[in-house]
Amino acid sequence: MSEWYLAEAKAIDAAMMERAESYQLTLTKPPGALGQLEQLAIQFSGYQSRLKPVLETIEIVVMAADHGVAGENVSAFPQAVTGEMVKNFASGGAAISVLARQLNARLTVINLGTVEPLPEIEGVLDRRIAAGTANFCKVPAMTVEQLQQALAIGREAAEAAARRGAQLFIGGEMGIANTTSAACLAARLLGKYAEQMTGPGTGLDAAGVNHKMAVVERALVRHPEVEVMQVLQNLGGFEIAGLVGAYIGCAQLGIPVLLDGYITTAAALIAEQINPSIQPWLLASHQSAEPAHIDMLQGLKLQPLLDLGMRLGEGSGAAVAATIVQAACRLQSEMASFANAGVSGKLDA
Amino acid sequence: MSEWYLAEAKAIDAAMMERAESYQLTLTKPPGALGQLEQLAIQFSGYQSRLKPVLETIEIVVMAADHGVAGENVSAFPQAVTGEMVKNFASGGAAISVLARQLNARLTVINLGTVEPLPEIEGVLDRRIAAGTANFCKVPAMTVEQLQQALAIGREAAEAAARRGAQLFIGGEMGIANTTSAACLAARLLGKYAEQMTGPGTGLDAAGVNHKMAVVERALVRHPEVEVMQVLQNLGGFEIAGLVGAYIGCAQLGIPVLLDGYITTAAALIAEQINPSIQPWLLASHQSAEPAHIDMLQGLKLQPLLDLGMRLGEGSGAAVAATIVQAACRLQSEMASFANAGVSGKLDA
Repeated sequence: MSEWYLAEAKAIDAAMMERAESYQLTLTKPPGALGQLEQLAIQFSGYQSRLKPVLETIEIVVMAADHGVAGENVSAFPQAVTGEMVKNFASGGAAISVLARQLNARLTVINLGTVEPLPEIEGVLDRRIAAGTANFCKVPAMTVEQLQQALAIGREAAEAAARRGAQLFIGGEMGIANTTSAACLAARLLGKYAEQMTGPGTGLDAAGVNHKMAVVERALVRHPEVEVMQVLQNLGGFEIAGLVGAYIGCAQLGIPVLLDGYITTAAALIAEQINPSIQPWLLASHQSAEPAHIDMLQGLKLQPLLDLGMRLGEGSGAAVAATIVQAACRLQSEMASFANAGVSGKLDA
Repeated sequence: MSEWYLAEAKAIDAAMMERAESYQLTLTKPPGALGQLEQLAIQFSGYQSRLKPVLETIEIVVMAADHGVAGENVSAFPQAVTGEMVKNFASGGAAISVLARQLNARLTVINLGTVEPLPEIEGVLDRRIAAGTANFCKVPAMTVEQLQQALAIGREAAEAAARRGAQLFIGGEMGIANTTSAACLAARLLGKYAEQMTGPGTGLDAAGVNHKMAVVERALVRHPEVEVMQVLQNLGGFEIAGLVGAYIGCAQLGIPVLLDGYITTAAALIAEQINPSIQPWLLASHQSAEPAHIDMLQGLKLQPLLDLGMRLGEGSGAAVAATIVQAACRLQSEMASFANAGVSGKLDA
């Protein structure tokens, strides 16, 4: 029996990408003068099988869950913040809420496992798997069944986005202590040490970072397994596994994914290792201030669009970068050609 | 008699910037987690004397003119392109036209001196000073009177923007051979050699760049003067002098300026040397692929938001970055505070 997450990603229209590459040369600008924006637009031509790609419908899904490893004092914020921020996302006061309004994007919040149950909140899907993961310094973060549940919740989010005609998917996350989980996952997948992958997260001082490194190191020793699903079960979080499911689902359904920062990129590393066919559907938005993020992006062979020193998560870096992807698509779709505009071309060398 | 361009820039509300800096700490995010966006928003608080800055009204003005130095074969494109692109800007097919639509920004094109007169075009102001500048390898690019005219046209553009309530000014430029002029200006102002400041522009090959360097070198030898107004008169272009006037005018009227690439930053270097009080009103949008652009930005003590390998001019890099400035302002203005959202703050260290 083959699992759903092993099914191939949708094929990208390579012939259309070639056409788009030639088409870029006809537009009224020196060849290559729009830099990375040209490559982005060409990629969207491949995604959409359209010479003139359109990026209007953006789906943002923030996945939230708590982490047992928070009990090891690895975060600068108390665990209650996870649930409190879920309410803040829904009531419009969080950074991602503001950015979703700017983009005119649909924002959905999914609770995959806050420690305390939350009252019913408009705009929040209650998909609580458990009262947070277990502390992975001691036991696996989740059971096999919980992992499958989280992946399926992610796929469900991708399917809902597809039904709504999403042309871009942004996954965000919230979960106190989740940079510790992401550091463990990335260290294991990239073959790095705890020291190389651990950073200050939401704002630890040097002593805090040292302590967090020791926790990451302990977790890695406790869970030496290297098989990717086992790694995710041992060291992941519900929201991270949810993102893994969502990214794989999006690639299968033909929705490009704009990654955010450290946590979402750890999820993408896992997703890509589970199912390498999804790689062409992943786009990097920004380089986080969390030091090891760039190593993760390199592991995925992705180049970020922005480097603004952001380190908030929630999908915020991706939401800021999305307007640049929109600009890239509009430029290719709406610019005039030399012939149509009556503009002279380059002189012969 | 003191010239208009020597009058002090509007004072920035430093007390409001301090308030904004404190206010950022109350918003529901780890302190500093929005990176450069926080500093940007704080700066807009200072510009607007408002804790919650608003960035909705953006004015884009593209200044176009021809350059006598085009006769030295320094561009990959024929001189006719300047006038042809003016029409393309106005009819909506150029990159900056597309980006202006995305931003819902007003786009004005000013013809300061195409070689051939242009027919009346809707959206293009005819302020043609002459049939292009003179070839500055042989004589000064313009007369004193022409320089004053160009500066005044720029000030007029700033005044029009102020009347329309502009909250941000983006100057763009078009002028075949104008990277040669900008290289000369920047070399003189930054005390650099021709080799250090000359790049491929719209797409010269290595031989073309070498030839262009020799032309820049010749122009610098021909015009050894270092007084800034004289430098601009000798080696500038009408559109560059127009931008100088616009930038100074904007700073005097309290409109922040988002610089674009190589040419506009050369204009800003000149403007800032003429009137150093304008510096706080200048913002860098992106780092151009033209190699020496970063040296110019450093000369102005500005840090770019984007580095996407763009090298188109027209104001295009600034227009792409403007959405990021908008995001910064919205985040500060619309995010909830820890207290209002009922979110717990950072743990004591």
